[in-house]
Amino acid sequence: MGIAQRMAKKQREISIAEFFEKNKQILGFDSLTKAMVVSVKEAVDNSLDACEEARILPDILVKIESVGKDEYRIIVEDNGPGIVRKNIPLVFGKLLYGSRFHAIRQSRGQQGIGISAVVLYGQLTTGKPARVISKIREEDVAYEVILTIDTKKNEPRVIKEAPLIWDREEGTHVEVTIRARYTRGKQSVLEYLQQTAIVNPHAQITLIEPDGRKVVFKRATDTLPQPTREIKPHPYGIELGQLLNMARSTRTYRLTSFLTSEFSRVSPKIAEEICEKAYLYGDMRPQELTIEEAKRLMDAFNKVRLMSPPTDCLSPIGENLIKKGLKNVLGSLKPGFYARPITREPKVYGGNPFIVEAGLVYGGELPKDQPVKILRFANRVPLLYQQGACVITKAVSSVDWRRYGLEQRGGEGIPVGPAIILVHVASTRVPFTSEAKEAIADVPEIREEIELALKSLGRQLKMFMIKKERKSKLSEKFFLVTKILPEIAKKSAEIVEKPVPPLEPVISKIMNVVWIDENVEKTGKNEVRVNVKVANFMPKTLEFKLYGDYPVGTLIETDGVAGEDYVVWDVRIEPLQYQHFYFRLGDVSGYGETNYYVEGINPSVVVGAEPLPGDWNIRLDVMEEILEKEAKEVGEEEQEIIEDELEGVEDE
Amino acid sequence: MGIAQRMAKKQREISIAEFFEKNKQILGFDSLTKAMVVSVKEAVDNSLDACEEARILPDILVKIESVGKDEYRIIVEDNGPGIVRKNIPLVFGKLLYGSRFHAIRQSRGQQGIGISAVVLYGQLTTGKPARVISKIREEDVAYEVILTIDTKKNEPRVIKEAPLIWDREEGTHVEVTIRARYTRGKQSVLEYLQQTAIVNPHAQITLIEPDGRKVVFKRATDTLPQPTREIKPHPYGIELGQLLNMARSTRTYRLTSFLTSEFSRVSPKIAEEICEKAYLYGDMRPQELTIEEAKRLMDAFNKVRLMSPPTDCLSPIGENLIKKGLKNVLGSLKPGFYARPITREPKVYGGNPFIVEAGLVYGGELPKDQPVKILRFANRVPLLYQQGACVITKAVSSVDWRRYGLEQRGGEGIPVGPAIILVHVASTRVPFTSEAKEAIADVPEIREEIELALKSLGRQLKMFMIKKERKSKLSEKFFLVTKILPEIAKKSAEIVEKPVPPLEPVISKIMNVVWIDENVEKTGKNEVRVNVKVANFMPKTLEFKLYGDYPVGTLIETDGVAGEDYVVWDVRIEPLQYQHFYFRLGDVSGYGETNYYVEGINPSVVVGAEPLPGDWNIRLDVMEEILEKEAKEVGEEEQEIIEDELEGVEDE
Repeated sequence: MGIAQRMAKKQREISIAEFFEKNKQILGFDSLTKAMVVSVKEAVDNSLDACEEARILPDILVKIESVGKDEYRIIVEDNGPGIVRKNIPLVFGKLLYGSRFHAIRQSRGQQGIGISAVVLYGQLTTGKPARVISKIREEDVAYEVILTIDTKKNEPRVIKEAPLIWDREEGTHVEVTIRARYTRGKQSVLEYLQQTAIVNPHAQITLIEPDGRKVVFKRATDTLPQPTREIKPHPYGIELGQLLNMARSTRTYRLTSFLTSEFSRVSPKIAEEICEKAYLYGDMRPQELTIEEAKRLMDAFNKVRLMSPPTDCLSPIGENLIKKGLKNVLGSLKPGFYARPITREPKVYGGNPFIVEAGLVYGGELPKDQPVKILRFANRVPLLYQQGACVITKAVSSVDWRRYGLEQRGGEGIPVGPAIILVHVASTRVPFTSEAKEAIADVPEIREEIELALKSLGRQLKMFMIKKERKSKLSEKFFLVTKILPEIAKKSAEIVEKPVPPLEPVISKIMNVVWIDENVEKTGKNEVRVNVKVANFMPKTLEFKLYGDYPVGTLIETDGVAGEDYVVWDVRIEPLQYQHFYFRLGDVSGYGETNYYVEGINPSVVVGAEPLPGDWNIRLDVMEEILEKEAKEVGEEEQEIIEDELEGVEDE
Repeated sequence: MGIAQRMAKKQREISIAEFFEKNKQILGFDSLTKAMVVSVKEAVDNSLDACEEARILPDILVKIESVGKDEYRIIVEDNGPGIVRKNIPLVFGKLLYGSRFHAIRQSRGQQGIGISAVVLYGQLTTGKPARVISKIREEDVAYEVILTIDTKKNEPRVIKEAPLIWDREEGTHVEVTIRARYTRGKQSVLEYLQQTAIVNPHAQITLIEPDGRKVVFKRATDTLPQPTREIKPHPYGIELGQLLNMARSTRTYRLTSFLTSEFSRVSPKIAEEICEKAYLYGDMRPQELTIEEAKRLMDAFNKVRLMSPPTDCLSPIGENLIKKGLKNVLGSLKPGFYARPITREPKVYGGNPFIVEAGLVYGGELPKDQPVKILRFANRVPLLYQQGACVITKAVSSVDWRRYGLEQRGGEGIPVGPAIILVHVASTRVPFTSEAKEAIADVPEIREEIELALKSLGRQLKMFMIKKERKSKLSEKFFLVTKILPEIAKKSAEIVEKPVPPLEPVISKIMNVVWIDENVEKTGKNEVRVNVKVANFMPKTLEFKLYGDYPVGTLIETDGVAGEDYVVWDVRIEPLQYQHFYFRLGDVSGYGETNYYVEGINPSVVVGAEPLPGDWNIRLDVMEEILEKEAKEVGEEEQEIIEDELEGVEDE
C-alpha cells in the first residue's frame, strides 16, 4: 500500500465536540481560574438573553459550591421563559445548536456553542453529567434532564429525563460540575458579575460564593433595555457569496423586489437606481444572477447613498451607564476629569450594523505610572481576557496619545498615565477572534470607529489639560495681581506721598477672565451642597448663562432653575465682583464632579467652565494659541502694565 | 403560543461551515491582506506536512495571479504523495475532516479545517469553486476535481471530477480564487515564506508574485527533519474525562496492561506502583473504573516519577536554524551579541509533550529605541499575527528584563532595546487560541517553560553586558597603565636623575587580566582571516586552552587544532607578553562573530572569552561582585600602586 493510501486510511470526519474536547483553550478553558469565569459567564449570558427576549426583568442566582480539590459545582438559575422539553437535551448537549445564529439582532449568545461547551468541559474534567431543570409558563410541571455529550457524534446522551414539581412559574436551572479554581479580585467571577450588573442595571444578580458569602447586585432600574428588532442585512460590505446565496434562495421574482425585501435601507427608488448602475434589468429573476452580474450589483451598492442601518437592532449602553461603569472601577479614587462619553453613529461591516461607544476618566487620584486601564465590552458583556488580541486594545495602541497629553513611547502602544478608557462595541454580529468570545477581531471598519471615538475623548482630555494648565498659570497671575500689585502700589504711593490710585481697571485689564470655582460640602449621609463662585475679572459688566450638571434624580434644592439633569443660572456681574450660587444633591454616594458650561459669552475668557455643547467644537489649536499667548504675556504685557501704573504713581 | 415555544421554533442545528461562513475572522480572514497570507499558509503547511510524512524533500510552487480588483487566484503545487481520488472532495470540501487530528505527533495541520476554510472563503468572497489536481504514485493518471462546499450540510459539492494526464509522478495542485490584497513587507506572503524557508531548510519553495516576479527560497539541506513518531498520551496533565474514555474503550483486560499499553513512559513496574498508590488492584478491568477510582489514579500519576515524554514525536528547530533565523531578520544589521540558543527539555501539558526553544540577539546596529522584536514559531510555522494574544508575548512581557539590562517600564510589558527574541514551541498539539492558529493560548505549563528559556537568555545577555562594561573599564585602565605610567616613571626618573625602573611587575599587578582580542580581515569573496591576540597582564606565566568557534564546514586553515566547529589552541604565555593565532574561513557570506572560550584558567581574569560551557554557570552575582570590586579599585589600589612606585623612584 502506498503512502497516499496509508494516509487516506487515517482521514476521517472529526465531530465538533471531539474538536473542542481536544482544543478546549479555544473555548476559553485554558486555565483553572479562567474555566470558572467562562462557565459562569456562558450560563449568565444565556439567562440574560432569554429574559430580555421574553421581556422579563432578569433575576439570576449564581451559586458556586466546592465539591473537592479544584472541583466545583456551578448552579445558575433564572426566571426566564424556560426551554421546551424536547429541546433541553439539544440546547445543553449539542454544540452548534441555537436560536440566535441566523437572526440579525444584538444578543450575547450567537454561536450556539457556549453552554454546551461548559457541559463538555465539565464531563471532560470531572466525568460528571450536567443537570438541567426547566419550566415553561404553559406547563404545570418542570422537567429535569441529566445529560452528557456523546463527543464522537456531537449528540446529547440523556441519562435521566423526568417531570418535576418546581415552585417557579417559569425559569431554567443549570448545574455543571467542573474542574476549576475560585478566586476573587482581577478577572474573577465577582469582577465579571459586577461589570455585567453595571451595564445591565435591569438585572438582579445574586452570587453565593463557595464559602457561603452572598453578594447581591441589586436591580437599579425596572426598565428593560429597548427590545432589539431583527433586521435584514445591510448592503454595505456584504460578501459576493452571501449575495449569491440570498439571490438563489429568495422567494421574490424580480431583482428590485429582491433588493427591497431582503435588505435593509433599500427603498424601491434606491433599488431602481442600483439596478440602473449595475446595468441590470429590474425585472430580471434574482435566481438567475451570474457571478459577474452579482459583482456589478455589489459595485452599484457602493455607488448609491444608503441610509445607515436602523439602530433598533442594537442596544448601546448609553452615556450614563458608561460613566457609572467608570465610576465603579474607580472605587474610592477620585479622578480629576470625566470626559463626556461618545456614542458614534451606527456603521456597517460585512452587512452587519454596529455602534461604538467610549468613555474616559483622567487624573486626580488615579495611579500615574501605569499603563492606562482599558475596560472592554461587547454587546453588554464585559470582556476580561485576551486584551492583547482585541481590536479595542489595538485601536487604543494606534492612537497617538501624546497629542492629547498622555505619555506614549513612540506614539504607539498602550499609553501610560492616570486614565481609564471604556469601549463598548454593540453589533448584530460581534466578530470575535474565537469561540471563547474574549476579544474582537481587527476588522478595519470597527477599528476606525473606535479610533474616532478615542480621538474625540482625546480632544476633550487635551482641552481639559489646557484649561488646567491655564487655570494654574492664571492662579499665579491672580496672586501677583491681587496681592502684590496693591502692595507695590501702596508702597509707591507712600514713597511719593500720593494717594493710592484705583487699581480695579488695571487688575481686570491684566486678568481679563471670568473665574468659576466650586466647593463641595458634605451636608449629610449621601448629601452634598455644591457652592459655585463666579468672579468677573473682565473690565466690563457681563451677562451670560451658567449651567451645572448633576446625576438625574438627585437634586434637592437650588437657587437656579432646575432642568432634568442640570441647573441653569442667569449671571449678571459687574467688574471685579463675585457672585455665589448653590445646589444641593441627595442620594449621591460617590458623587464625582459637576461639569459647568457657559452660554452667551466668549468661552475662551472663561476659566472653570466649558462652552455649552453645540459650541463644543472650539478647535484645539485655537485654545493652544490662547494659552501660548497668555504664557508669553505673563512675562511681557503684565510687566508693562505694572510698570506703567507705577510710573503713573510716581509722575503724579 | 408562548415565548418558550416561539423561541424553540427558531432553535436549530448550525453546520460548522455555516458557522465559519458567518465568523470568517475566527479562521483569520479578518482583512484582505491577511486573507492572502492565511490562504497561502494553509496550502503550504499542508504540502510540507504531506511531504514530510511521505519522507519526500518538498518542492513547492506558490503562484499568485491577479484576476480582478482585490481578486486573486492562488495556486499551490507540491511534489507530495498526493491524495487518493475518493478523499479529494472531503479534504478540500468538508471542514473538520483530516488525518492528523487523532495522532499524537508534531505536525503543522491538526484540525482538519485549514484548507477547506480557504475553499469556503473563496466561494464566499468570489463565488468561484476550487480546483484540485492530485496524483498518487500508484496510479497512471491524476484526477481533477472542481468543487464548492454546501455550507448548510458541510459537505463537498463536486462540479467536475475527471481523470487527467499530468506529467508529475505524484503531487497535489490546488487553485482557489479569493478576495484579498497582495502586499510585500511586514506580515506578507513573502515574510511568511521567508521565515518558513529558514526553519524548513529541507524545502525548496518558489513564489511567483502577481507581477510575475519570481522568488526562489532554495533548499539548503537534503536532510529531512527526523521523522516524528506517533506516541501515546503521557499521563501528566491528562483530563479525567479523557482517562475514563480511554479506560472504557481499551481492549486490555487488566488495569496494569491498560496503563502500560495506552500511555507513554509507563513501565510494568511503574504501572504496579501507580495502582498501589491509587489503592486499586492491578488486575481489575479498566472498563469498570469509576469516577472516584479514576481520580485516585490521576492523583497516583502525580506521585510517581515518570520519565519525560519521548522526544522523537517532536521536531525542534535546533540551535543553528535559530541563529540563522535571527541572522536573516537582521538583514545587513550587525548585532553586538548572539546568545547561545536555548533548547529546553521536553515537558507535558494535558498529556501532550512539548519543547520550547529560544534565541536572542542584542546590540550592535539594532535600533535602540523600539520595543524588542519577537519572532514566534509553532511547529516550524512562523506566526505573523495576533502577537498580543500569544503566550510567547505574555511570557516575554512577564519576565523582568530590567534585571538583564533591558529597559522595561515597571518590570513588565515588552521590553525596549536593541534586541530580537525568537521562540519556538513544538508540540504534538499546539494549543492555539483559535482555528486561525495565529497565537498560542496561555497554558501555564508552556508559559513557564518559555519564561525559563527567556531567563536563560537574559542571564547570558547580562553576562555579556557585564563583560562589555568590564572591558570598557579595563580599557581605561589599560591606557592609564601602559601609556601614562611609563611617562610618569620616565619624567620622575629624569627629575631625580635615576634610571627608569622596570615597570612590568607593576603593570601586571595593576591589570591582573588576560586580554583576548580578535581582528577580522576580509581576504577574498566570502573569505576571512580571523587574527586572535592574547595578552597576559597577570604577574605570572599562564598555561590554558583557548577555543574559537566557527560555522561547520567553513574552515580553510588554522595554526590551532581544528574540531568540527571550533579551533583549539594551547596557550603558554609569559607575563606582559602577547601571542598571536589565526584561522581562515571560506563560504562565510555574512560572517558574524566568533565566540571564544577558555579552559584551565580562572575565567574571571579573562577578558574577551567565556568559560568553556560546562563551567558555564558561573553565577551572575559572582561576576557582578568582581566588576564592582574592580570599579572601586581603579580609584584606590591603582592610585596606591602608582604612588608607591613613584615614591620608590624618588627615594632611590
